[in-house]
Amino acid sequence: MDKSTHRCGEDKELLIKRLKRIEGQVRGIQKMIEDDRYCVDILVQISAINAAMKKVGFELLEDHTQHCVADAITSGKGDESIAELMKVFQQFSKS
Amino acid sequence: MDKSTHRCGEDKELLIKRLKRIEGQVRGIQKMIEDDRYCVDILVQISAINAAMKKVGFELLEDHTQHCVADAITSGKGDESIAELMKVFQQFSKS
Amino acid sequence: MDKSTHRCGEDKELLIKRLKRIEGQVRGIQKMIEDDRYCVDILVQISAINAAMKKVGFELLEDHTQHCVADAITSGKGDESIAELMKVFQQFSKS
Amino acid sequence: MDKSTHRCGEDKELLIKRLKRIEGQVRGIQKMIEDDRYCVDILVQISAINAAMKKVGFELLEDHTQHCVADAITSGKGDESIAELMKVFQQFSKS
Repeated sequence: MDKSTHRCGEDKELLIKRLKRIEGQVRGIQKMIEDDRYCVDILVQISAINAAMKKVGFELLEDHTQHCVADAITSGKGDESIAELMKVFQQFSKS
Repeated sequence: MDKSTHRCGEDKELLIKRLKRIEGQVRGIQKMIEDDRYCVDILVQISAINAAMKKVGFELLEDHTQHCVADAITSGKGDESIAELMKVFQQFSKS
Repeated sequence: MDKSTHRCGEDKELLIKRLKRIEGQVRGIQKMIEDDRYCVDILVQISAINAAMKKVGFELLEDHTQHCVADAITSGKGDESIAELMKVFQQFSKS
Repeated sequence: MDKSTHRCGEDKELLIKRLKRIEGQVRGIQKMIEDDRYCVDILVQISAINAAMKKVGFELLEDHTQHCVADAITSGKGDESIAELMKVFQQFSKS
C-alpha cells in the first residue's frame, strides 16, 4: 500500500527531536556496556528508552486515530481502519 | 555506587552489535516521519524496536542473575540483590 | 456520567462465558497456593489469566471503537471520545 | 515434575485473600457487562484486575527467587533454575 500521512511541520519536528534523544540514549547504552557498567543501571536506562519509545508510539496512535481512522469512519469505511488500529494496538501493547 | 560488571568480550561485542542495529532502526523511524510515511507502518516499526530492546534487556537480566545475583546469594548477601532484581524487573516489565 | 452501551445478547453471553472461565482459573490459583504447588507453575497460570483478561479487554476496546467512538466521530464529537480511548488504552496496555 | 513449595501459613492466607478479592472483581465485570455498563468503565476495571494479578505474580516471583532459586544456586544447581526463572519472567512480563 502506498498510504501516507501528512503531519504538520511542528509535530514532525517535535517527534524527530525526541527520536534523536532516544537514538542518543541507545548509543549511551552501548557505551555503558563497553565500560562494564553495572547491569541494573543499564536495565534502568533500557526501561527509560522503552518508556520514551512507547510515548512516541502513543502520540502517533492518537494522531492516527484523530485523522486517518476518523476520516475513514466519516466516509463510511471505518471497519477496515478500526480492525487495523486494533491489530497495531495489540502488537504495540505487547512490545 | 561504583558497582561494575565484567562481561566477556564476545558477549559485549554481540550486545553492542545489536544496539547499533536498534540505533539504526530509531534513525529509520525519524526518516519515516520526515517522509510522511503511514502511521501504522511506523507503529509496527516502533513495536519491533521495543521488542528488540526488551530482548537485549532480558539477556542482561539473565547475565546479571547468573553472575551478580548468584554471587551475592553464594556469599550470603542475596536478600539485597534479589530485592534489587525484583525492582528492576518490575520497572522493565512495565516499560 | 451515566453512559451505557447496548451490546447484543450473543456477544454478552460469550464475554460472560469467558469471564466465568477466568473466574474459575483465579479460584484454581487459590487452590494451587493452598496446596503448596510449585511457584513457576502458578506463575504460568497467572500469565494465562492475564492473557485471557487482556483478550476480553481488546474485544471490548474494539467493540467500543466500532460503536461509541465511531458514533461520536460521525456526530462531530470525536475529539473527547478519542482522547478517552487513548487514555484507557495506555492504562490497559501498562496493566 | 512433582516440585512443590512450602510457604508459611501467613503468606498463603494473605495471597489467597487477595485472590478472593480478584475473583470478586472478575464477577463484578460479568455484572457490568450484563448491565450494559459503559465500555471504558469496564476497561478501567479490567486494567485494575490485571494490575492486581501482576502484583500477586511479582510477589510469588520474589518468593520463588528468595527460596527455590537461591537454594538451587547455593547447592550448585543454579543454571537450570535461573533459566527457568528467566523463561517465566518473559512469559509473565508479556502477559
